[in-house]
Amino acid sequence: MSDLKQLREDLRHFAAERDWDRYHSPKNLAIALSVEAAELLEPFQWLSEHDSARLPSGDRARVEEEIADVLLYLVRLADKLDVDLVAAAMRKMQLNAAKYPIEKVRGKSTKYTNL
Amino acid sequence: MSDLKQLREDLRHFAAERDWDRYHSPKNLAIALSVEAAELLEPFQWLSEHDSARLPSGDRARVEEEIADVLLYLVRLADKLDVDLVAAAMRKMQLNAAKYPIEKVRGKSTKYTNL
Amino acid sequence: MSDLKQLREDLRHFAAERDWDRYHSPKNLAIALSVEAAELLEPFQWLSEHDSARLPSGDRARVEEEIADVLLYLVRLADKLDVDLVAAAMRKMQLNAAKYPIEKVRGKSTKYTNL
Amino acid sequence: MSDLKQLREDLRHFAAERDWDRYHSPKNLAIALSVEAAELLEPFQWLSEHDSARLPSGDRARVEEEIADVLLYLVRLADKLDVDLVAAAMRKMQLNAAKYPIEKVRGKSTKYTNL
Repeated sequence: MSDLKQLREDLRHFAAERDWDRYHSPKNLAIALSVEAAELLEPFQWLSEHDSARLPSGDRARVEEEIADVLLYLVRLADKLDVDLVAAAMRKMQLNAAKYPIEKVRGKSTKYTNL
Repeated sequence: MSDLKQLREDLRHFAAERDWDRYHSPKNLAIALSVEAAELLEPFQWLSEHDSARLPSGDRARVEEEIADVLLYLVRLADKLDVDLVAAAMRKMQLNAAKYPIEKVRGKSTKYTNL
Repeated sequence: MSDLKQLREDLRHFAAERDWDRYHSPKNLAIALSVEAAELLEPFQWLSEHDSARLPSGDRARVEEEIADVLLYLVRLADKLDVDLVAAAMRKMQLNAAKYPIEKVRGKSTKYTNL
Repeated sequence: MSDLKQLREDLRHFAAERDWDRYHSPKNLAIALSVEAAELLEPFQWLSEHDSARLPSGDRARVEEEIADVLLYLVRLADKLDVDLVAAAMRKMQLNAAKYPIEKVRGKSTKYTNL
């Protein structure tokens, strides 16, 4: 089983054991994901871009936990909506590659994505 | 190679080809992730929890793309910070299991997580 | 002086005294605003819509502080960008009134705004 | 009547005329506020801090609208929760002044606020 499928199974089991499935509407999970993403952003907010690559070690541990939280809620939300996470990401990368041809965008920031 | 490692490699390649690495400071990636998470939340904002499980088909396609964007920025941010995404998620699940023992929380919503 | 202008002046003074103006780029203030908005959302995430109107008293005090934080960063950001907050809000309300005529939208949720 | 009280009245009227009050649970309004804050952050995400003070004129118009949206949802949420926005902001500024004495923090960034 792939890593993400394993996480998906573990999360199903975790929720079932606690009878927490009832709270896991897509709406609530999308809120929780967004809140976690903001918590992940928080330690970077006053750092320069340069310093953001060199987090103090206390912040680093926290950032790892927030990254984990974002992934867990994302896996859970995708499961509830029956979305294949990796397939969706592969498809999006192909869309991006078509939308931003190398020769046109090389070295230039686009407005809404750089991915 | 696992799916997430493959995505990580593809994203490195994508950025290198376009010379976009210069924009990918952890600070900027954390902002982009948070913006994408909000875009993912947007179609759910006025739906009831019940209806959020039954998205109209146009919204569904959009939601899949936003889910993909969140994963892509998350993989890229974790790469830049040298965080092993899956290991971090597994560790966080163990912390959550210890923090929320089944017999204590069964069927009750906790304030800050239900995962 | 209007309340918002007074807040604007107080915030200028507060930043000048602490030599914090250097951190107050529009980019950083927009991040901080977004992080505070997510902190304001957090206590509502697992509540039903109905219960969200009846916050427990501890959460209520916290929510008041987060509401204040959002307003303070918004006033500061608008100041840095030379935007007249109230005039912008009045203008937006007129746009919304034209976009959502009463007879067309009465009682129906629109997708992206209900304001 | 103060500007914010006027906005509050206008928003009550706007919602009543459209029978939109039913969508305005504090939970939904807090989501909408957070989504708007992210839309306000979006045009800044790939700019340097320096350039973020000099928005291109198209982005400027958009940023003004997003600032307005954040204020409108904030006023509406505060109304629904019976929070006096300006009083809460004044109180928070006093808390911040006590927490960050000039002589201790002058010229230094704090981790979680600089306001």
